[in-house]
Amino acid sequence: MRKGFLIVVSGPSGAGKGTVCSAFLKEHEDVAYSVSATTREPRAGEQEGVNYYFLSRGEFESMIENGELLEWAEVYGNYYGTPLKKIEEKLSKGQDILLEIDTQGALNVQKKFPDGVYVFILPPSIEELAKRLRGRGTDSEEAVERRLAAAAGEIAVAREYTYTIVNDTVEHSVQTLAAIVSAEHARTCNNLEKIDEIIKGA
Amino acid sequence: MRKGFLIVVSGPSGAGKGTVCSAFLKEHEDVAYSVSATTREPRAGEQEGVNYYFLSRGEFESMIENGELLEWAEVYGNYYGTPLKKIEEKLSKGQDILLEIDTQGALNVQKKFPDGVYVFILPPSIEELAKRLRGRGTDSEEAVERRLAAAAGEIAVAREYTYTIVNDTVEHSVQTLAAIVSAEHARTCNNLEKIDEIIKGA
Repeated sequence: MRKGFLIVVSGPSGAGKGTVCSAFLKEHEDVAYSVSATTREPRAGEQEGVNYYFLSRGEFESMIENGELLEWAEVYGNYYGTPLKKIEEKLSKGQDILLEIDTQGALNVQKKFPDGVYVFILPPSIEELAKRLRGRGTDSEEAVERRLAAAAGEIAVAREYTYTIVNDTVEHSVQTLAAIVSAEHARTCNNLEKIDEIIKGA
Repeated sequence: MRKGFLIVVSGPSGAGKGTVCSAFLKEHEDVAYSVSATTREPRAGEQEGVNYYFLSRGEFESMIENGELLEWAEVYGNYYGTPLKKIEEKLSKGQDILLEIDTQGALNVQKKFPDGVYVFILPPSIEELAKRLRGRGTDSEEAVERRLAAAAGEIAVAREYTYTIVNDTVEHSVQTLAAIVSAEHARTCNNLEKIDEIIKGA
């Protein structure tokens, strides 16, 4: 049986990677979502094991020590990370997994899973990115300016990804992401067993 | 402006590459079809300049001598070849071109167009291939046996292709081919100008 793919979706804040991933997963129930672990408090409506695995600092630090995280980072005093075991279990069962992650985290994942599918979500322009960040209303103007200043550097990292999607519309981006996953399944290197099987039948 | 892609679809006789290509082109009018030249007799319903350029052996041999063919081969006593000039014109205008070609020809094209997209259409099984070849009713039983004997060797060549599609149903194969073309457009190496453009706007 073939192994599943790790599909890593990244991009700068405000490019819309979260929206694209949610919409994609809704249409592709066969693809699992990689749930992150965090030490921050659950927000209203967030569910354990669905949005995050909520851990104590002690639990998280013991996962770091035991090498149980694919990647992790400390952001504003809270830990965030990707539990490795569930990913490996699902991949070995042939299931595809979608991992939505910041640009720094994605490059670390790439070192450990070079066979993953790396997709960078681009904003159509910096102006549009600024508009989306301000429209979100979750960041102060200072935080928006900081994110925009970082954006050019983050976008330059897109060159390290196999695929880039310009997120003009969510619908178009979801279609392209689906096409990428479908094309990856059709790569010959993922169909060698099938080729052998057909030849043996001759 | 970006250059177009050469999409090369190949596979053994009877795998269904012709049916898949026709159905794909009907749904994707933006993709041009590379019409081959041949010295074989037209089959019922085949049109000059649409299915093939039907040439005499003398005309074909003069194209060979003048280097006007991307590739050519003699298969079962008939010449088949790909006129080069139209392909180069369309690619330079940014148009994608679909080239349906036998497995031997495709490997020669790969040497000249290494950036092309190479897709191998597989039959679900050798039994199914035999059924399709006999069902087509265009070949003698002897010709069918000859094609089947060649099939295992031809299928082994699939390993040289970037993509392979098991042609279970035409609809599924067309969808996969469309996904491959869409994914190729999303490859970062084909979007470097767009990335630069966004960064310059920062």
